[in-house]
Amino acid sequence: MSFIERQKNRNLIQERGIEMIKIGLLGFGTVGTGVYEIINNTENNLRRLLNKEIQVSKILVRDMNKNRNVDAPKDIFTKNPLDILENPEIDIVVEVMGGIDDAYKYICLAFKNNKHVVTANKAVVSKYIDTFLQLSNKYNKGFLFEASVGGGIPIIKPLKQSARINNISNVRGILNGTTNFILTKMCDENLSFNEALDMAKKLGYAEADPTDDIEGYDVKRKLAILSSIAFNNKTDVDSIMCRGISSISKDDINMFKKLGLVSKLVGSAISNGNNYSASVEPVLLNESSTFTTVKDAFNIVSITGDVIGELQFYGQGAGKNPTANAVVSDIFDIVTDQYKRDDFVQNGNLISTGIDLFEGRYYIRVSPDNKSDMSKVLKLMDLDKLKYEILSMNENLIVITDVVRADRIEQFISKLNMLKEEYCYMRIEEDIINLKYEAK
Amino acid sequence: MSFIERQKNRNLIQERGIEMIKIGLLGFGTVGTGVYEIINNTENNLRRLLNKEIQVSKILVRDMNKNRNVDAPKDIFTKNPLDILENPEIDIVVEVMGGIDDAYKYICLAFKNNKHVVTANKAVVSKYIDTFLQLSNKYNKGFLFEASVGGGIPIIKPLKQSARINNISNVRGILNGTTNFILTKMCDENLSFNEALDMAKKLGYAEADPTDDIEGYDVKRKLAILSSIAFNNKTDVDSIMCRGISSISKDDINMFKKLGLVSKLVGSAISNGNNYSASVEPVLLNESSTFTTVKDAFNIVSITGDVIGELQFYGQGAGKNPTANAVVSDIFDIVTDQYKRDDFVQNGNLISTGIDLFEGRYYIRVSPDNKSDMSKVLKLMDLDKLKYEILSMNENLIVITDVVRADRIEQFISKLNMLKEEYCYMRIEEDIINLKYEAK
Repeated sequence: MSFIERQKNRNLIQERGIEMIKIGLLGFGTVGTGVYEIINNTENNLRRLLNKEIQVSKILVRDMNKNRNVDAPKDIFTKNPLDILENPEIDIVVEVMGGIDDAYKYICLAFKNNKHVVTANKAVVSKYIDTFLQLSNKYNKGFLFEASVGGGIPIIKPLKQSARINNISNVRGILNGTTNFILTKMCDENLSFNEALDMAKKLGYAEADPTDDIEGYDVKRKLAILSSIAFNNKTDVDSIMCRGISSISKDDINMFKKLGLVSKLVGSAISNGNNYSASVEPVLLNESSTFTTVKDAFNIVSITGDVIGELQFYGQGAGKNPTANAVVSDIFDIVTDQYKRDDFVQNGNLISTGIDLFEGRYYIRVSPDNKSDMSKVLKLMDLDKLKYEILSMNENLIVITDVVRADRIEQFISKLNMLKEEYCYMRIEEDIINLKYEAK
Repeated sequence: MSFIERQKNRNLIQERGIEMIKIGLLGFGTVGTGVYEIINNTENNLRRLLNKEIQVSKILVRDMNKNRNVDAPKDIFTKNPLDILENPEIDIVVEVMGGIDDAYKYICLAFKNNKHVVTANKAVVSKYIDTFLQLSNKYNKGFLFEASVGGGIPIIKPLKQSARINNISNVRGILNGTTNFILTKMCDENLSFNEALDMAKKLGYAEADPTDDIEGYDVKRKLAILSSIAFNNKTDVDSIMCRGISSISKDDINMFKKLGLVSKLVGSAISNGNNYSASVEPVLLNESSTFTTVKDAFNIVSITGDVIGELQFYGQGAGKNPTANAVVSDIFDIVTDQYKRDDFVQNGNLISTGIDLFEGRYYIRVSPDNKSDMSKVLKLMDLDKLKYEILSMNENLIVITDVVRADRIEQFISKLNMLKEEYCYMRIEEDIINLKYEAK
């Protein structure tokens, strides 16, 4: 439908007394454009369902003169955020501009001007989730952020619902498409980390500066949001231990295959009594686990509750359409009053214990220059009373430890750092009863 | 908390003016008991979240004198459904009694008496979903049935939400724990169908009369509900083609392993233009697909939309706690006004085409008494112009066809039936580019 046709329809609608809901978009990048398109393409459908009409009536952009391949009237764009935030006609502010400081300011101002807020911005949500939920309660307006985690996967809403009834003990997921793409290519096509990263860049799966993705910072923000909801307790982003995937070598991948294991970058948060631990790190999973079937840019989230058991949610973790779909779904929930002004209370009881609650067997590979360095490493392990089985002492020293707490491994790694050897280590996440590979 | 403590709390609550929501339970079997327990165990949590108190105030049972291992006062039970349905104090009727005729009558009466309805009853929902949604709209009351499909998996709600924005082309799932348990045991422990069924009965995964499960009738009802929502068009249960798993032999399982395939009972509905096809049948999946990682009594549902792509939802498909969790989640949605009186309109455009929209390569195994019968079968295939590759002509004739429409295979099978040979056939659901097994 062209803009003029839509406008005609709207005049008709207003004559018939159908309620008009006006939306202000903050930002018009990939997701913003997707939101605009979905709203305009599905509006007939919407009208039938809701007896309400949704209209994007203002869009905040940086550059008024940029050539945009979108069928939108010139005067819909503005450079002044107050045209949206203080516009009495606008009901819902949709923040899809990214970044932290401006986004924070605008979202607060939106609430103070009695507007509902929908956002896809994980950075600002993970940092200010408590403030935003308080404002949402204070002004009795919706605050929804489904698109901030897992792109198109509906996870925030079912997690909230599960947390109403269950004590959630565990939330974990593959939450970053770039790293999952890289690890998939390393595993399936035998590429090195750098080769796979280059391919990801070429195909648009990785940004020019991929640090946020490959070092796990992106997952850290998403995990902070998930674990804040799961445990009903704001998780400080900085309390989450975070390691990326760049130390994984071809030799590691080959050994994982022999062991029947697959490496994935997983964000995990677990709670136990008054404590919680959260980490983002590459872990090793059983070949036959559901997580290992999650390939390329797909995401998966698993939650475990005392009543419900384990639930898993799978889908496209990023991309224009899936993410915009999640934003529009939030908008619909607000329009149909199907949102809850959440009583998200920082219960204040949960204390971060770093990573002490994690434990498991560990894969450790050290690549020293010579054999005598290998024995230094083994001595270090013995000094730390780590029990282990040696899988290889050829070019690399590769061991698998007995079950051990994560903090003990970190202590060992900090000592290993002093030897300045290249290494890679990973927790084995599932019970591997029968390791395929016979240690020699 | 004991009943007397709870009662004290309630008096306190009413003094403080907290709103009291009263629930009538129709039925007090496994799920009903679970609902009662969850509501009573989480009520403090609820009060904080909702500033409302939920109370189960009446329970319809068949036998007033049955010994129940539940902490509930005698006078909460009644044999008279009108004590609930016409009780002006009751806000929400929860139907967990099962069956069709009485359940239908009671649900209609509940709406007419201005009560919200929550049900876990797939039989009555699949048959009367259109009537119930019309009544729910007419009386402006909630009608939620999350527990009717996939037990504890939140699928109905995300499916509704996706269908608001997307054209859903495909909904499919492993929706029956009994058959999935049996197939898992046949595959992983090399049991015959009957051995696995006996084990399922012993462990409580199969009922004394397992017909509904193993013949696929249970899945058919669940699929009818899913596809009605997905396509916004009531799917008649009887329009769904349905075959069970009892014809699968040990020889089949062995051949599947050689081919790198796994058999699962899958309910699938696909739409194309004005047509849809729906079937419940055992199909063959790639070993590395997510569906094949779904073991024992777990369920999975996959939906595909034009905007969102594919989403998958995994969890416990049955059992007291997961199912009761879903019922209570629906109750909370009603209590917090987070339900939508759905404008579920039979759009009337979609026409069932039987199974004509399905196509794929087919695995066919025929076990005749002698070799000459094998050639009869092959002639029959040639007559039907089926193209195939022979995998085995030893004890069994096993072939894999080229890609062919499902209705053509059904035509062939109806002719095969006249030969009165034992056989088994299955569509291969995923693109199997490299079959592991070399045909001879």
